[in-house]
Amino acid sequence: MGTEKIEKITRPSADLVDRVRHVGAATASATLAHMGLRNCAITGPTSWNKGKLIAGPAVTLQCMPMREDLAEEGEYADVEKQLHRHVLYQVEEGDVVVVDARGDMTSGIFGDMMSTYFKGRRGAGMVIDGCVRDWGKIQKLDIPMWLRGVTPNYHAQTNVFPFAVNVTIACGGVTVVPGDIVVADDDGAVCIPVALAEEVVDKAHKDHGWEPFSRTKLMQGEPLQRYYPLSDDARPEYEEWLKDNPDS
Amino acid sequence: MGTEKIEKITRPSADLVDRVRHVGAATASATLAHMGLRNCAITGPTSWNKGKLIAGPAVTLQCMPMREDLAEEGEYADVEKQLHRHVLYQVEEGDVVVVDARGDMTSGIFGDMMSTYFKGRRGAGMVIDGCVRDWGKIQKLDIPMWLRGVTPNYHAQTNVFPFAVNVTIACGGVTVVPGDIVVADDDGAVCIPVALAEEVVDKAHKDHGWEPFSRTKLMQGEPLQRYYPLSDDARPEYEEWLKDNPDS
Amino acid sequence: MGTEKIEKITRPSADLVDRVRHVGAATASATLAHMGLRNCAITGPTSWNKGKLIAGPAVTLQCMPMREDLAEEGEYADVEKQLHRHVLYQVEEGDVVVVDARGDMTSGIFGDMMSTYFKGRRGAGMVIDGCVRDWGKIQKLDIPMWLRGVTPNYHAQTNVFPFAVNVTIACGGVTVVPGDIVVADDDGAVCIPVALAEEVVDKAHKDHGWEPFSRTKLMQGEPLQRYYPLSDDARPEYEEWLKDNPDS
Amino acid sequence: MGTEKIEKITRPSADLVDRVRHVGAATASATLAHMGLRNCAITGPTSWNKGKLIAGPAVTLQCMPMREDLAEEGEYADVEKQLHRHVLYQVEEGDVVVVDARGDMTSGIFGDMMSTYFKGRRGAGMVIDGCVRDWGKIQKLDIPMWLRGVTPNYHAQTNVFPFAVNVTIACGGVTVVPGDIVVADDDGAVCIPVALAEEVVDKAHKDHGWEPFSRTKLMQGEPLQRYYPLSDDARPEYEEWLKDNPDS
Amino acid sequence: MGTEKIEKITRPSADLVDRVRHVGAATASATLAHMGLRNCAITGPTSWNKGKLIAGPAVTLQCMPMREDLAEEGEYADVEKQLHRHVLYQVEEGDVVVVDARGDMTSGIFGDMMSTYFKGRRGAGMVIDGCVRDWGKIQKLDIPMWLRGVTPNYHAQTNVFPFAVNVTIACGGVTVVPGDIVVADDDGAVCIPVALAEEVVDKAHKDHGWEPFSRTKLMQGEPLQRYYPLSDDARPEYEEWLKDNPDS
Amino acid sequence: MGTEKIEKITRPSADLVDRVRHVGAATASATLAHMGLRNCAITGPTSWNKGKLIAGPAVTLQCMPMREDLAEEGEYADVEKQLHRHVLYQVEEGDVVVVDARGDMTSGIFGDMMSTYFKGRRGAGMVIDGCVRDWGKIQKLDIPMWLRGVTPNYHAQTNVFPFAVNVTIACGGVTVVPGDIVVADDDGAVCIPVALAEEVVDKAHKDHGWEPFSRTKLMQGEPLQRYYPLSDDARPEYEEWLKDNPDS
Repeated sequence: MGTEKIEKITRPSADLVDRVRHVGAATASATLAHMGLRNCAITGPTSWNKGKLIAGPAVTLQCMPMREDLAEEGEYADVEKQLHRHVLYQVEEGDVVVVDARGDMTSGIFGDMMSTYFKGRRGAGMVIDGCVRDWGKIQKLDIPMWLRGVTPNYHAQTNVFPFAVNVTIACGGVTVVPGDIVVADDDGAVCIPVALAEEVVDKAHKDHGWEPFSRTKLMQGEPLQRYYPLSDDARPEYEEWLKDNPDS
Repeated sequence: MGTEKIEKITRPSADLVDRVRHVGAATASATLAHMGLRNCAITGPTSWNKGKLIAGPAVTLQCMPMREDLAEEGEYADVEKQLHRHVLYQVEEGDVVVVDARGDMTSGIFGDMMSTYFKGRRGAGMVIDGCVRDWGKIQKLDIPMWLRGVTPNYHAQTNVFPFAVNVTIACGGVTVVPGDIVVADDDGAVCIPVALAEEVVDKAHKDHGWEPFSRTKLMQGEPLQRYYPLSDDARPEYEEWLKDNPDS
Repeated sequence: MGTEKIEKITRPSADLVDRVRHVGAATASATLAHMGLRNCAITGPTSWNKGKLIAGPAVTLQCMPMREDLAEEGEYADVEKQLHRHVLYQVEEGDVVVVDARGDMTSGIFGDMMSTYFKGRRGAGMVIDGCVRDWGKIQKLDIPMWLRGVTPNYHAQTNVFPFAVNVTIACGGVTVVPGDIVVADDDGAVCIPVALAEEVVDKAHKDHGWEPFSRTKLMQGEPLQRYYPLSDDARPEYEEWLKDNPDS
Repeated sequence: MGTEKIEKITRPSADLVDRVRHVGAATASATLAHMGLRNCAITGPTSWNKGKLIAGPAVTLQCMPMREDLAEEGEYADVEKQLHRHVLYQVEEGDVVVVDARGDMTSGIFGDMMSTYFKGRRGAGMVIDGCVRDWGKIQKLDIPMWLRGVTPNYHAQTNVFPFAVNVTIACGGVTVVPGDIVVADDDGAVCIPVALAEEVVDKAHKDHGWEPFSRTKLMQGEPLQRYYPLSDDARPEYEEWLKDNPDS
Repeated sequence: MGTEKIEKITRPSADLVDRVRHVGAATASATLAHMGLRNCAITGPTSWNKGKLIAGPAVTLQCMPMREDLAEEGEYADVEKQLHRHVLYQVEEGDVVVVDARGDMTSGIFGDMMSTYFKGRRGAGMVIDGCVRDWGKIQKLDIPMWLRGVTPNYHAQTNVFPFAVNVTIACGGVTVVPGDIVVADDDGAVCIPVALAEEVVDKAHKDHGWEPFSRTKLMQGEPLQRYYPLSDDARPEYEEWLKDNPDS
Repeated sequence: MGTEKIEKITRPSADLVDRVRHVGAATASATLAHMGLRNCAITGPTSWNKGKLIAGPAVTLQCMPMREDLAEEGEYADVEKQLHRHVLYQVEEGDVVVVDARGDMTSGIFGDMMSTYFKGRRGAGMVIDGCVRDWGKIQKLDIPMWLRGVTPNYHAQTNVFPFAVNVTIACGGVTVVPGDIVVADDDGAVCIPVALAEEVVDKAHKDHGWEPFSRTKLMQGEPLQRYYPLSDDARPEYEEWLKDNPDS
């Protein structure tokens, strides 16, 4: 697929993205399930720098099985034809690059220079169903990354090559449409169809006011049946507790 | 992806397809390897009705991981939106339907009615990185099929759904462009990039005239070194044999 | 688990079982999906003697990972403690033995003597998420069998051992409760929860009267849109055809 | 399986559990192998918070492949019927919850509230052949956990559902009987059949008095043949060393 | 590894091989297990032409992951350096070629000419933990073959290349020493360490005289407990039967 | 294979090894690919103590599938016959032990005493396509290790046993000849055929002088097209920057 055909994504509002981010991966996934989308959790790529929480529209890269007649040859030949560069050209502040690298463990889709450029463009993070290389240097960039692993090999060295940018891809068992909102944290990455994002935010399980109270009780070994979810019997106790813990 | 965007494939000449068929899968694969395309053999789908030899241009169907908001619901709902029907509408006589069913063993891409229609359109055969259903009936149609298996489930029952027709797909670890020529026999299916097909036919290992002679010798336990490939020492012997076997 | 605790299964009526058999695996699976049970098709075991169609209540055997302190030692020691014998003692005419052999390819759950006994008891067939041994002899018994494969090893030789009879098991990714109705043919085996069997039979897609007509048309390359499902436009044509084909 | 049938486990003495803990996973596994139990090491789940060492009786939860007619629907519906709650009700101080989650990477068996309750009950730790969710919060609880991974999905969202409590399960290729003693550390988790636990403790390889001496020598590059195991030749040297290192 | 280093195997007596053949794969495997060798059954390769029973000494070929600096290039270059030819040079009548092809599904170790030569040398059969090519032609040769599959690719086209002849190899999870006796039938292939072959033959479960009698009874649905193994109670009945069936 | 046959490796010069180390895994792998060796990256074993960078000649250990007649019995029996000891006897300062443990997750090839000895011999590090045991103690030794995992089991407890020292092995999909140079860092381990090592060092992509400059620019979001690789247009800018950053 040539570089001339790359489509721009339509981005959701920054406000919507921000509200999605507050929902987090676990609640987003469960909410989507209750809405009839059974599994929007990208399985395989895991957090390589724990403690991150991001959300942003998906800019996508599709890799395909190596076809020597279609792939550009060599690591540095005709660099401007290499589509893993072009997916980064599409990145705007807050975007999430999502790569279908076909689960391949022998292809490092990006190295440290490309990752530096991504950081310079203020991308929010990357979700790759595959690997990066130069991990020693990349980890210092502190870019939120969900990966299957790392490898010394470059992007088109073995079984796959970058084939298309901003097409619908499969990543870790989930179909990702360019512009969908990806939210990711230590639990993993979840793809929220952009048309459903408002509904997800609305329906998302809100932390109940009593959760901090219940958490305290559960930590003391008090009955799950009474405190989670909060039973009517325990409500007066909770209200008493609230008086002493007004800021909780 | 909507049905309105489906592209037509460009078909190679019947003569070229016929010559490719005579090359066969094993020689086609080896010849492509010598031309620098290491692996064009589709791995996973195997022949389900042994003894077939077909070649034809690829008409493609891409499945994606189930996304309930994108897939049409139910087995019979809105049948005209189901893309596994539309890929068959594209079939002309001699075409090979190639399906990226993601290796899924729980989705039967086609059943017996669809397969009957395919046969009625005189398709050459099917290569599916996944399954069909109604095998009891389909096998009686005697359509050349390379499959991973069979299943009682229908096409969109579990993990995947048909997403696009006549786009470039991955099938069994090989990138297949619509219009590429697929040749398949008991060894499996090979994708020949259409632009290289003439060259493949030209470069294909021709059976040497001495092969029937050598085969006779090898079957008698004569030395491989002398008869395969035919050594200069053995050439007079071969020429003598030819006199007695003029039609070989 | 001792042999003293083995529970008897409750069998559905022969009539119900027979009606389920006429539904067949593919239609049963699709109907269950429409009823909200997404995947009742046992994946992994495939037909080892094509052309069979059976249905019957499930008698179950659960294997567990080898624990030398729990397993009976040796092939012939304490035969009456071996639970793979006891599952056969439970078999009545028309029953289907379903075995969770954990997908193990190195354990032959039954050999030819045990299989002969099963045939003598008039069992309908076996579905084993694993292997049998003595295949050379067993195939001559012509017992309908859905297997992952065959092996020379005996049942408790390597990784697993028979642990319980007539408990709920997982087989090929499907939960099977003793007494559920299993229907199996060339497409594979499907587990129908016994409480839903009547509903499955009722809701099962009936072959429409026009299907033989449509099949003829599709085989001639006539439009899928017109003949499958039968369109209103084509109905008069069908009715005309019926006059000439009164027995179809 | 209903909640009314849940059996209580019989717990070994705290003293025995404590002695098992001192044995550690590696020595326990090797000792069991010498006693004829080849492999009691649970393979798959690994330590998610390194540096822990626990032992305790197993309280078990069995998951089965999703059967929509058997599973309770939704994340919060009929919470008291959800068996992953009931397994926690069985927990007493020092218990280890062991879950057969079938290796599923798309089901988070417990979230942070359930984990908090487990901590409140002073459970020793968890071994799950699968995942938890809410890892960002759970890790702060510092519960010793051996897992296959984490996921944003809830327990019954995709392929499995909790089916039975305190039945014999398979976990990571090992059969675990409720009440067996699990010992786990950075090497992984080992299941010790409770009837064999005294023997394991007795037969466990005791650290030889000379090991600290030998370790010093080996670290200096001295011959393995001489110092491990300690040879008769090296014994006088060791005894000399002991005088200078009376507390080793 | 050069061709100059290839060692000759030592062959067991034809008589011993013949007696092993009569034992068959299932009984050989079980007998070895009783002798302490838990698993000598080669797992993965299965019979590709059912109904064969062979035994013979193993001549071995080891493949290794492709290293372009070590592998001979091309399909026909320097044919005499190709070790898959040399393994066939080692074959004498009755030998079994056993190949560690690393389970690779994209390398056809032998084609039809090589297979013809093998047949000419009167090899007993082949066990390949991988594939052959030219199956359409090879199957007509009717050589007993246990394979993982077939492929159009040639032996060194993708991931592996032939590296050594007559060294100890791993094949389908079993260590095979050159000269060990392989026995194979529809159940699969079993490697018998040559030093243990006499003992295997001696200890092999002999068919009991009462087995034909018992088989008749079991086929009639008579109790397994009474007839398999034959109980003392049933012995008079058997002796009576013998009178009427003197040749059984 | 007996211990008497172990061959010594030939070691490259310390200077060459040091230069290889400065190349690093990613550049070594890419350079080898450009030289025609597509994949020399060992896949599977990953760094278990991040931040290490080593290079050294490979001393190899080959494990084979368990054959009870060939393996020494028990954990401590006949210790001097155990080949995992002998591979360590071969270690000299700077060597890298590379083990084909067949990807087995249930065998701990080395424990803490053996690892202490390795450290005492000043080995550079270990690459094991499998596991070690006693990880709690081993990690304190801070030996650079690339592993698939850890296990409580000892080396010959389950499926494999040490079979040969300093023979050519497969490790993580790469053929490793004893004496080849292994370079390993956070990206993984790469095997450099020793005969090609000088060429790899010569051809290795040298960091261009402009890379620190370009990195600064990319981090600011400046165009990849202009700064990576450095375009002619940007060269004057770079030269200007150099004046202010003379030490970069």
